[in-house]
Amino acid sequence: MKLSNFVSATLVSLSLLSSASYANIGSPTDAPSRPKNIVIMVGDGMGPSYTAAYRYYQDNPSTQEVEQTVFDRLLVGSASTYPAAVSGYVTDSAAAATALATGVKSYNGAISVDVDKRTIPTLMELAKKRGMSTGVAVTAQINHATPAAFLSHNESRRHYDALAQSYLDTDADVLLGGGQKYFPETLLAKFADKGYQYLSDFSQLAAVEQPKVIGLFAQVQLPWAIDEPDAQRLSTMTQKALTLLSQNEQGFVLLVEGSLIDWAGHNNDIATAMAEMHEFANAIEVVEQYIRQNNDTLLVVTADHDTGGLSIGANGDYRWDGQLLKAVQASPDAIATSAIAVDDWQSHVAQQLGFTPTEDEAQQLSNARMQGQKVLDGAIKTLIDSRTNTGWTSSGHTGVDVQVFASGPAASLFHGHQDNTDIANKLISLLPKKAPTASNNSAPSKSAAPAKVETEALLP
Amino acid sequence: MKLSNFVSATLVSLSLLSSASYANIGSPTDAPSRPKNIVIMVGDGMGPSYTAAYRYYQDNPSTQEVEQTVFDRLLVGSASTYPAAVSGYVTDSAAAATALATGVKSYNGAISVDVDKRTIPTLMELAKKRGMSTGVAVTAQINHATPAAFLSHNESRRHYDALAQSYLDTDADVLLGGGQKYFPETLLAKFADKGYQYLSDFSQLAAVEQPKVIGLFAQVQLPWAIDEPDAQRLSTMTQKALTLLSQNEQGFVLLVEGSLIDWAGHNNDIATAMAEMHEFANAIEVVEQYIRQNNDTLLVVTADHDTGGLSIGANGDYRWDGQLLKAVQASPDAIATSAIAVDDWQSHVAQQLGFTPTEDEAQQLSNARMQGQKVLDGAIKTLIDSRTNTGWTSSGHTGVDVQVFASGPAASLFHGHQDNTDIANKLISLLPKKAPTASNNSAPSKSAAPAKVETEALLP
Ligand SMILES: [Zn+2]
Ligand SMILES: [Zn+2]
Repeated sequence: MKLSNFVSATLVSLSLLSSASYANIGSPTDAPSRPKNIVIMVGDGMGPSYTAAYRYYQDNPSTQEVEQTVFDRLLVGSASTYPAAVSGYVTDSAAAATALATGVKSYNGAISVDVDKRTIPTLMELAKKRGMSTGVAVTAQINHATPAAFLSHNESRRHYDALAQSYLDTDADVLLGGGQKYFPETLLAKFADKGYQYLSDFSQLAAVEQPKVIGLFAQVQLPWAIDEPDAQRLSTMTQKALTLLSQNEQGFVLLVEGSLIDWAGHNNDIATAMAEMHEFANAIEVVEQYIRQNNDTLLVVTADHDTGGLSIGANGDYRWDGQLLKAVQASPDAIATSAIAVDDWQSHVAQQLGFTPTEDEAQQLSNARMQGQKVLDGAIKTLIDSRTNTGWTSSGHTGVDVQVFASGPAASLFHGHQDNTDIANKLISLLPKKAPTASNNSAPSKSAAPAKVETEALLP
Repeated sequence: MKLSNFVSATLVSLSLLSSASYANIGSPTDAPSRPKNIVIMVGDGMGPSYTAAYRYYQDNPSTQEVEQTVFDRLLVGSASTYPAAVSGYVTDSAAAATALATGVKSYNGAISVDVDKRTIPTLMELAKKRGMSTGVAVTAQINHATPAAFLSHNESRRHYDALAQSYLDTDADVLLGGGQKYFPETLLAKFADKGYQYLSDFSQLAAVEQPKVIGLFAQVQLPWAIDEPDAQRLSTMTQKALTLLSQNEQGFVLLVEGSLIDWAGHNNDIATAMAEMHEFANAIEVVEQYIRQNNDTLLVVTADHDTGGLSIGANGDYRWDGQLLKAVQASPDAIATSAIAVDDWQSHVAQQLGFTPTEDEAQQLSNARMQGQKVLDGAIKTLIDSRTNTGWTSSGHTGVDVQVFASGPAASLFHGHQDNTDIANKLISLLPKKAPTASNNSAPSKSAAPAKVETEALLP
């Protein structure tokens, strides 16, 4: 879509917004037409095969029908994900997050800078200027590409230390995820000086009652959900973030990311991917529940891109046995590690997989085990793919469109097909038009920077 | 979704239909809330990667933006495709077409019979009972799974001869596609007795002015679009079907199928698949144009399933060079055939592909050519996949959800996620409630058969 087309489409949408009938489409009765709060949730790498596979993974085999998932309930449209032309048609997470956070296409690797490496204002920065609170809750390190693009700017996603440093200036109210490695004590001391409470242990989260908070619960990313099935970390962080951010009467913007769906996809690891999908789905249900009680909150869920070229069925066989994954007790990585360490490894692997390998399969695992943990990990994934009949085409991303899900006020804006930049532009158009007056501004905006002019020009 | 949930959802939808505000959602101004005519278009095998790939294949490289396609304009939702539980989660074209034609899940191979092999009334049969006209325009043989499930019933899609015979009793007004092999002269004589005009040559189609017509333009399926790029057969058949069917004041139901997208997908042949996508997209644009002039017509476009596990990008490489496919002059199958027959085959292949193979690539083609046409065909497809960076996981179908596109009166019924059976049930709910009176019934319904009771129970 040309920019001029988008602008006119947005103007039409906004004029519709002012009519009473519009507010009732897809919104609870008596809901306002503009949201006070925005929750954007990103399933990193969650291409359309992931949500369909998750439905069949979750299917109750004792009923005739296939049960709907939260994704089925909330689907409203789709989004194209291609980056700026210089990077072709297949995006990385940085360019995609830049699109979702700023409404501008950039090159793969960019963190909210344009193709000329100029800073672009983000949804969260604009929200801050309007007196809103902001927060992120993710399962990767908090300075990973997706949250970084919503909060900061850098010419490269790989500048993790610089991104961590830059978070000091974001004024973000809630920062939850992994990344201790990138936040040394000297940096954390500066966060403390700014009034942040620092948490290094997940058990500390429950007691937090007020922003600002920075919680880093792992050196880099959080553990795989499949390896800690009762931890429910993303749901817990999401619930806490909602509780803390909703204290601001001016509203909030919260980013929640199921970051590790993508990491499991890169590993072509279907068992781990489905457990991460479940973690993400549970977090969406937490927000769904919040919206039922707070009809002033808009939820938009999408993915940044597909990862792995996952397919439900493969090799000419019309079959997918995702149910088998429910019995897998740990990630193939963890199973391989433990199987290297014990003598009675075959019965251990059978117990962890939930099925007993055939003689041929056992022989392949045995050959792999002799070559070490990494090869055994690969052999276990191959075995699970074969048993479930799962296909993959890549260790990287693919260019299929992703799905868009929405609920709450103005959810109808996201119906149909759109570009990923349209999502950001629509969200930005829903922010309050003016900064609050000083008297009721709980988070005063900074003095006008050169970027502010550009910012205002973007707004209707 | 449980049936009870669907029924209540449908009742809500139907009650909405009666309110004036509803009719204005997604419909041209002054359009009726119920369509007079229904066009359902099926891209066989057209999973979500196909429509996104088609966008990048069609992209004009001389502009900065990526141009929207007809699919982007019309997208409204998605559909799950799983067959009856007995067949697992990955459907074949017969079970999927049965779902789309009847609203009932059945086993893979079923042609509008349920899991107990009982006949289920189809959308087209119900339309006929209401005095509407019916027609199919497809690029496969007209008795292939998808059109067969809309018109007839059989316990197996493979009973091609029985299906062809059964078409005599369908009273269908327009039958256009391939399949001469299944319609011997004795059978065609019976069609003539029933008043059908028979066409065996595509050039005869232009002169047809009235139904009924049966046009069979190939022994089995029509030629690949890539091998006859100017023929525009599907668009031409679609335009003619609309012209002929719209003569009935009671309205019509038309099925248009881009059948060979699936066949190219089974062959893992991206060049041929994209040309078939273009053929299908052009046919959709013909219907779009018709709807602009006839705001009483509902268009619903979907796929029956994904084929091949196509991915845009593969092998860890963030790249897809679909533009290269625009220069490919013929199907790999046709290129291999001609390359076997000529001495100067290397320059011929280079000319047909639109690029000159490297030395390594030429050596691989040379080795393949020595093993015959079939191996050379495979080598050419592998070369094109490598140059474009296209991935595949299967020679069969996969279980990813398909997209749903709609325009015209009641298009909003198809917004969001739904099951493929929901699509049929919604379309059936939009048929007129009663058969017309004898005086204005241009196509009188048959006397009540036992199936009719079942039929009426399905209607609101
Ligand atoms: Zn990734
Ligand atoms: Zn097929």
